[in-house]
Amino acid sequence: MTDDRQDDPRDAAGARADEERRREEARRREEEARRREEETRRAEEAEDEVDVKAVRAAIAAEDHETVRAVALDLHEADLADLIEQLPSAERRRLVETLGPDLAPEALAELGEGVRDEVLEFIDPAVLAAAVKELDSDDIVYLVEDLDAEEQARALEGLDAEDRAIVVQSLTYPEYSAGRLMQREVVTAPTFWTVGQMIDHLRAADELPDPFYDVIVVDPAMRPVGRAALGRILATRRPATLEGIMDDEFRTMRVDDSQEDVAYAFNKYHLVSAPVVDDSGRLVGVITIDDAMEAMSDEHEEDILRLGGVGGDEEITDTVWETLRQRFPWLLVNLATAVLASLVIDQFEEVIAQVVALAVLMPIVASMGGNAGTQSLTVAVRGLATRTLTDANARRVVLREAVAGALNGVLFAAVMATVALVWFGDGRLSAVIAAAMVINLVAAALAGVLIPIALEKVGADPALASGTFVTTVTDVVGFFAFLGLASLVLL
Amino acid sequence: MTDDRQDDPRDAAGARADEERRREEARRREEEARRREEETRRAEEAEDEVDVKAVRAAIAAEDHETVRAVALDLHEADLADLIEQLPSAERRRLVETLGPDLAPEALAELGEGVRDEVLEFIDPAVLAAAVKELDSDDIVYLVEDLDAEEQARALEGLDAEDRAIVVQSLTYPEYSAGRLMQREVVTAPTFWTVGQMIDHLRAADELPDPFYDVIVVDPAMRPVGRAALGRILATRRPATLEGIMDDEFRTMRVDDSQEDVAYAFNKYHLVSAPVVDDSGRLVGVITIDDAMEAMSDEHEEDILRLGGVGGDEEITDTVWETLRQRFPWLLVNLATAVLASLVIDQFEEVIAQVVALAVLMPIVASMGGNAGTQSLTVAVRGLATRTLTDANARRVVLREAVAGALNGVLFAAVMATVALVWFGDGRLSAVIAAAMVINLVAAALAGVLIPIALEKVGADPALASGTFVTTVTDVVGFFAFLGLASLVLL
Repeated sequence: MTDDRQDDPRDAAGARADEERRREEARRREEEARRREEETRRAEEAEDEVDVKAVRAAIAAEDHETVRAVALDLHEADLADLIEQLPSAERRRLVETLGPDLAPEALAELGEGVRDEVLEFIDPAVLAAAVKELDSDDIVYLVEDLDAEEQARALEGLDAEDRAIVVQSLTYPEYSAGRLMQREVVTAPTFWTVGQMIDHLRAADELPDPFYDVIVVDPAMRPVGRAALGRILATRRPATLEGIMDDEFRTMRVDDSQEDVAYAFNKYHLVSAPVVDDSGRLVGVITIDDAMEAMSDEHEEDILRLGGVGGDEEITDTVWETLRQRFPWLLVNLATAVLASLVIDQFEEVIAQVVALAVLMPIVASMGGNAGTQSLTVAVRGLATRTLTDANARRVVLREAVAGALNGVLFAAVMATVALVWFGDGRLSAVIAAAMVINLVAAALAGVLIPIALEKVGADPALASGTFVTTVTDVVGFFAFLGLASLVLL
Repeated sequence: MTDDRQDDPRDAAGARADEERRREEARRREEEARRREEETRRAEEAEDEVDVKAVRAAIAAEDHETVRAVALDLHEADLADLIEQLPSAERRRLVETLGPDLAPEALAELGEGVRDEVLEFIDPAVLAAAVKELDSDDIVYLVEDLDAEEQARALEGLDAEDRAIVVQSLTYPEYSAGRLMQREVVTAPTFWTVGQMIDHLRAADELPDPFYDVIVVDPAMRPVGRAALGRILATRRPATLEGIMDDEFRTMRVDDSQEDVAYAFNKYHLVSAPVVDDSGRLVGVITIDDAMEAMSDEHEEDILRLGGVGGDEEITDTVWETLRQRFPWLLVNLATAVLASLVIDQFEEVIAQVVALAVLMPIVASMGGNAGTQSLTVAVRGLATRTLTDANARRVVLREAVAGALNGVLFAAVMATVALVWFGDGRLSAVIAAAMVINLVAAALAGVLIPIALEKVGADPALASGTFVTTVTDVVGFFAFLGLASLVLL
């Protein structure tokens, strides 16, 4: 048969129509697939988004069935979110409605504030049962703030060995590697073969979760290497662990701070790190997911401290907790604000004669405060990420000073123009321009030097917060502006 | 022989001395072990701490031997830190001295600013050689900001398939799951047995690193489960992957933001997550170490934005880059500061008569600014961690307002006393007390409502920064204080 479609217009049209139909069909199928995909995605997202309002309505209506159906269907992390987002009274009713069916992991996911609140009213039997199902690090988090008697009661259900592990962990300082680590570790001697390792794992009752590598230890239980699971899987049975282990691993000590741990994980791309005691013996392992959570906590604390808030304020806090966290910093700020006012007080005379000074002086202070906060933020981050070090501190300070001076000159020009247009006084313009340059240089220097100094004396540089820097910029700003004014204008 | 030591005082003394000696010996050994341990630890720490000054001295002396010896002995992450901490000119000399021996991973560890600087002077042949040794995600990071021609040249050495992968990855938006993922994935069909899987892995040329689990896929390459390596290792050969896989896994889409990815990893304790394209086909995998780095980047951006600095300023930036990042925010701040001054300008008359007002007014503004920043910080973090949601927004706003009012009353009392002692004017005291309450309530409300509003319109709440909130507190503070003063005092 020859191809004669070109000769027969009707056949050609038919073929075109066929082609068209096939394409149409393919388009339709594709469309359909996309639509299904989109629906699945939406359904998945909806699953993640707990309908808090519906739950609250069900709680109010004492519709226990619905409450349980919704809550028990959630991922533990989402259930924890739901508990956190309810008002106090409803929180309690939800927890009581769920009773022993409340997932133990959800308790371990709660923020500290809500955790402590829930522990106050939860049935001790439910708590003891939950504790039995959790890993040691989660148990420690759950019971760390209970008093001795409650703690003993909560740990009652554990067997002696597990209880001893938890009690031991509680002796390590809060926010240390010892608190962060899990005690469940798979170890093996160097001479084991891959085959022995696999047989050992197959025979094990239970394996740690998460579990990324086997810690290879010497006879004194000192870690000498790590054998990644991927490496074990990809190696034939007769090879020894010594041959495949990575001896470039990093060991943490029980008393290392969680900040240092998180830093090392992020910098060296660690997956897990053995934790040793003072004598170098392996006591636990920190995995990257714990390190990620520690990093998140530390960042949180830095941000809050920079904002002048106690490091552990949470959105779920009550009015009283909020007040307790914020009052002290506001009090410090009041003291420093009064200091700035004392400076202004020295220049009452010139202000009384040139009221325009009172109008313009907040601009000088505000620009200084903002520029100082910029330098401060960059310096605090540089210290936290260890990119600002002794080696480059002098260069960074110099750069800040130069950038401050350049910004000062630019804004001096702008403000001199604004002041001239506004008040028509050339000398006033000159005064505000000079004060602007002085204050922006002071701001840049204070912003970088104060956190460096705090770090040197062993304090958290983030505690510098706005307050100290803005004290400097307020005092310098008012003094420069009003002082120059009394020299030039009086 | 009977035990007659008690009868012989000399023997008893000898036994005690023996006992004493043994204890002494044990103590000494323990001491010795501790000392050795301590020494090792110090040596390890010293290894981590690069002696930047020594390197700079060697560079200055053109002592290439020493420079190479020190630099090539470092972990790649430490080498990257060293490169970052050198001044520009020495940075270049170090990179040129190392030449082709510069570890490719060290290039991938550099911050964006220094990376771009190094890429400008690095020998293109060294770059192309480095690219050949890196994983796809690191290559993408390295070349993403090069122009088309340089990019082509850098990727020249890759084989066609790897190059296609990199080019494809570059089409995904920056800071998306597509950019974050690695393309190297181990997949397997559901019907494979553990034995087949192990044989496959043993036969593989190269496995991804890091590598935590096998993604189980259907025939259309859609992920249907994940089989953790620990689980595979602990299971006997005949079991199928379908039987041991976890089908409760979370899938990311190529266009998900890295912020969402990091959030999901941290919340659900994910170890790895398959990434799919629009049609649901597997295109890569994100592992927790990538998610941890993304989280760190996002936190960094939030902190910098809250501090009124462009989100990607680095400590290694030059003066000009610093200026470019900071000038715009200072300009915005100037505009808002002028606004506040316009308010003061309305009350020139009362200030001219009662100069004490000029002395006290910055205190009202400063307290408002600080209280506002506190609320703002907590609200921005609540939004970022998704603990501040539609479900509890009204409660949080109410709590802020009440806490603001209570703080207002407390500080009103303090300031009224201070003002009374200072200026001896009861009416002035009353005015500042009332203004303090008004401004702290306004601060609390502005601090929480501005970020919520920004989030609603799809902007980053951290962009609220101090500036908008302090505009509100300055304007309200000056207006309340001076306005009440002109009513009461004139």
